[in-house]
Amino acid sequence: MTDLTGTWYISPTPFTGDGAVDPDSLRRIVDAASSWGADGITILGVMGEVADLTSAERETVLSTVATAAAGRIPFAVGCSAPAAAVVRANVARAVDAGASAVMVAAPTLLRDTDQIAAFYTAAVGTSPIPVIVQDEPAATGVTMPVSALLAALDAAHSTVVKLEDPPTPPKIGRLLAQRPGLTVFGGLGGVSAYSELRRGAAGTMTGFAYPEILKAIRLAFEAGDTARAAALNDRFLPYLVFEGQVRVGLGIRKEVLRRRGVLATARTRALNPLPDPATLAELDDVLARVGLTPGIEPLELQ
Amino acid sequence: MTDLTGTWYISPTPFTGDGAVDPDSLRRIVDAASSWGADGITILGVMGEVADLTSAERETVLSTVATAAAGRIPFAVGCSAPAAAVVRANVARAVDAGASAVMVAAPTLLRDTDQIAAFYTAAVGTSPIPVIVQDEPAATGVTMPVSALLAALDAAHSTVVKLEDPPTPPKIGRLLAQRPGLTVFGGLGGVSAYSELRRGAAGTMTGFAYPEILKAIRLAFEAGDTARAAALNDRFLPYLVFEGQVRVGLGIRKEVLRRRGVLATARTRALNPLPDPATLAELDDVLARVGLTPGIEPLELQ
Amino acid sequence: MTDLTGTWYISPTPFTGDGAVDPDSLRRIVDAASSWGADGITILGVMGEVADLTSAERETVLSTVATAAAGRIPFAVGCSAPAAAVVRANVARAVDAGASAVMVAAPTLLRDTDQIAAFYTAAVGTSPIPVIVQDEPAATGVTMPVSALLAALDAAHSTVVKLEDPPTPPKIGRLLAQRPGLTVFGGLGGVSAYSELRRGAAGTMTGFAYPEILKAIRLAFEAGDTARAAALNDRFLPYLVFEGQVRVGLGIRKEVLRRRGVLATARTRALNPLPDPATLAELDDVLARVGLTPGIEPLELQ
Amino acid sequence: MTDLTGTWYISPTPFTGDGAVDPDSLRRIVDAASSWGADGITILGVMGEVADLTSAERETVLSTVATAAAGRIPFAVGCSAPAAAVVRANVARAVDAGASAVMVAAPTLLRDTDQIAAFYTAAVGTSPIPVIVQDEPAATGVTMPVSALLAALDAAHSTVVKLEDPPTPPKIGRLLAQRPGLTVFGGLGGVSAYSELRRGAAGTMTGFAYPEILKAIRLAFEAGDTARAAALNDRFLPYLVFEGQVRVGLGIRKEVLRRRGVLATARTRALNPLPDPATLAELDDVLARVGLTPGIEPLELQ
Repeated sequence: MTDLTGTWYISPTPFTGDGAVDPDSLRRIVDAASSWGADGITILGVMGEVADLTSAERETVLSTVATAAAGRIPFAVGCSAPAAAVVRANVARAVDAGASAVMVAAPTLLRDTDQIAAFYTAAVGTSPIPVIVQDEPAATGVTMPVSALLAALDAAHSTVVKLEDPPTPPKIGRLLAQRPGLTVFGGLGGVSAYSELRRGAAGTMTGFAYPEILKAIRLAFEAGDTARAAALNDRFLPYLVFEGQVRVGLGIRKEVLRRRGVLATARTRALNPLPDPATLAELDDVLARVGLTPGIEPLELQ
Repeated sequence: MTDLTGTWYISPTPFTGDGAVDPDSLRRIVDAASSWGADGITILGVMGEVADLTSAERETVLSTVATAAAGRIPFAVGCSAPAAAVVRANVARAVDAGASAVMVAAPTLLRDTDQIAAFYTAAVGTSPIPVIVQDEPAATGVTMPVSALLAALDAAHSTVVKLEDPPTPPKIGRLLAQRPGLTVFGGLGGVSAYSELRRGAAGTMTGFAYPEILKAIRLAFEAGDTARAAALNDRFLPYLVFEGQVRVGLGIRKEVLRRRGVLATARTRALNPLPDPATLAELDDVLARVGLTPGIEPLELQ
Repeated sequence: MTDLTGTWYISPTPFTGDGAVDPDSLRRIVDAASSWGADGITILGVMGEVADLTSAERETVLSTVATAAAGRIPFAVGCSAPAAAVVRANVARAVDAGASAVMVAAPTLLRDTDQIAAFYTAAVGTSPIPVIVQDEPAATGVTMPVSALLAALDAAHSTVVKLEDPPTPPKIGRLLAQRPGLTVFGGLGGVSAYSELRRGAAGTMTGFAYPEILKAIRLAFEAGDTARAAALNDRFLPYLVFEGQVRVGLGIRKEVLRRRGVLATARTRALNPLPDPATLAELDDVLARVGLTPGIEPLELQ
Repeated sequence: MTDLTGTWYISPTPFTGDGAVDPDSLRRIVDAASSWGADGITILGVMGEVADLTSAERETVLSTVATAAAGRIPFAVGCSAPAAAVVRANVARAVDAGASAVMVAAPTLLRDTDQIAAFYTAAVGTSPIPVIVQDEPAATGVTMPVSALLAALDAAHSTVVKLEDPPTPPKIGRLLAQRPGLTVFGGLGGVSAYSELRRGAAGTMTGFAYPEILKAIRLAFEAGDTARAAALNDRFLPYLVFEGQVRVGLGIRKEVLRRRGVLATARTRALNPLPDPATLAELDDVLARVGLTPGIEPLELQ
């Protein structure tokens, strides 16, 4: 079974200049993520704009990545939906495509968190592959207290959480205090990655455009070299914060991936599909300040 | 062009005993709605559990109703989605299937209501068939002030609103004060139908299980017989309120449609797919009190 | 100790024509509630516009009612606040004034419902008088699952809930299934009072302008005469629903209390402090249809 | 008239070891803010835990600061409330105490943003001192689109905004594009201060525990030395981000102010009034990394 830990890379969904899903760029994402040392790839998540794709487009993403990743790198598939029956259908398709895991958040705008366990039981209680429980209040409108997260994990027979309810470090602390041994991924663009590791996170699962940085922070931390982990965090924090902005951050990330030679375009499915000139000017400035260059080859980090 | 006014019936999505979409029941819904005098049928709306269907199931609903309704009764199709590109794809499919109109709500959890106009322009600005702008804060998490509703209507080249932001009567009043001549449908199960007519609503578009009642109220009101309209409202209000309950109301409605011989089962896609015994006992009581009987034949209302 | 059950009357806060708190009308409210047979009065609740009063005005309300009610009718005091320290101060003042109970809701916009117990412990864990736990998501923005409600009750050493999370009847059912013997008051203007009684509610605590009706429904139900209870509910439902509208309902209620001779004016602290002409016209119509007359003397209900 | 621009300091409300408001520490805050070069002090804001104070405590804060600040440094007073009448009372008291300005946010949980103008007209339309319109969706639950912000400003006869709706830089850009010349303060702990200045912000108004840093960034930026401004931002960003965390950030800030010799204790009115050990350990680490020392004397920034 795939080791669900480390530095996973959440793939964006790339679009061509006319707005269609771009399989060529998707294949380059798989190549790049592998060469950058990602421990796995997650597709069809929030930052993959899954809610903004037609079902045919979701199938294109899934089948393209499944083929490109086969035998090279494990992949997980976002399968969230408001109804358990739809989650089950999504999970079945992911399993069929060879996914290593599925990721499922609470149903959008769910009001009664006492229903969390029944939902996860119905949705993924019999999943043949591991389930990652995603705690993502910004996208779902649902805040899960730790008690509800634990109920979800039990119902899903899962020991893996992607935790994105800020501030994440103390919540990771509370969660692990109640359930030691869980695998907790941070997300949110890696802005709090170092703090999350300090609280016991097993890694990050996010779409930050330089996953090499997050991996280097983690490896230094795991090796006990907290000074190096902190220094890497602090050096790149201006860009982590800049890319990590809500709503506009995805366009920044895609622009950087375009500059790295991975994506053909920076387009998103937002109403304004490309970053505006002021954002691009500040991006140039931030990247220069932290010394990031746009090559597709893995960063060499001293 | 179809007259978008009157008493439209919102179709639920029927399920078989094992939870699959049930085309036979869907065809009976079209038959029944026609015989009950509905001016049109709306499918794939919130009460059609559209968010809880796979895309294949949505296609089943659309194609089944399109075939059954062709030449007999106009139908409108819910095409809402968070991204304009997906709405456009949904609209294209609805047009292809022969729909008379499409219905589009604000994108779920949209925060900046100044973006409403740009969204509707991108989503339905070039729709070849009429657009119904749906104001449904409970399902979308987005409250639209009247100014945003008007911006949406302009962007959609639309003059038709389905208004479900309670309390609906004063909002209808405010909307029509600023834009006389709009067609405003009430919804919300018809609980406020009579009050909405008093404020200028053109009718209701809802899934209430006895649309004959809502039609009779409207016809009496339009004929100037407000005493009869009010008396019909008051007589059936206990059941209107009972069926109109949030969350549990859909199961009640489907149970009544089952008793009327339209649906094979009362199943929904909720975690508890059938009404509980206490709800069923109260349903029996309410129906008896207001004198409603379960036949599929149109109610004869004195 | 006061019997916290039955039909409690939630007092509005009356204003004079120039918008000041009106003690004379407050005293008439106490007189009227007593004569109408209310089992108690609750002040400084959501419908008492407590959030819209200065602290001096809240003190005026409290001291006026305390004096007027002393020895005649028990009263409860809304003491909700975002911080436990402020709740404690409010409770101390209520105790000092002779209140029979305090009512406390969750802190506004609380996100982590696992903190509910700690909040109630800190806020009212040592209250010398009974605590009513209020479940009011519309006013607080906080949805409490049944598990959180039970934790709040335990922390508050309370056995009394005012439950206003719609649909209330099934939530009352779930709550009492887990904790038989609780006293559950319905609220929400009494719109679901009869259904709530069927599910085990002990009464209603609401500001409906004719509490005699709610009391008559309850007494009939408790006497086993469900037919009479249901008939009373159905007869007056058009007005219950009309007064029960969110946001605009308080102005309607105050206008009726003005007509009954209790309040000097119908003013609220909303931006539009008085009902608009269309609302007043419909009010006349509804009252006429259900046969309600405006006297201050208790309704005689056949 | 006071120049409402620059680097304003939002005062926390200090508490003694037993949880009471601490006037001695408040006076030290005024002293320190003056010596740190703040252009003004704002009291009774969200980060001043205004919602968690009794009215007597708010009066203590106001009168203490008014006395301490008189003739030395201008101060602004948070006067937000759900009802215009209460805002008016708060404004009157602030004027009486000698405030230079008042700050008013949208009413908590307001749904209809078309009512913003009427609210500000009723609340502060006749304020004799300048009004700062606060855009703070996290605390109010109300997202104001730019159109609503402009309506609020017009109604308040104001040209000053405190903008805290993330991501703040692009919203500042949109706002100033529509209304050049506005004074826009950033907030949110200064995390985005440098980006906000790039978009046209006039300064920051926040409670960051080292306002000297924010002032130095602004002065460098205004002098055209963007390299220095950016370098200062990047150097201190690890601490800006750490203190800027939602919910837990206030406790961190107060702990640092305690270490700087300003506050007697780090207590807040949260359920857990002091930072936990893991947070304190990380605080030590972050401060050491960025080279911040705890003296009350103004930082000397190269």
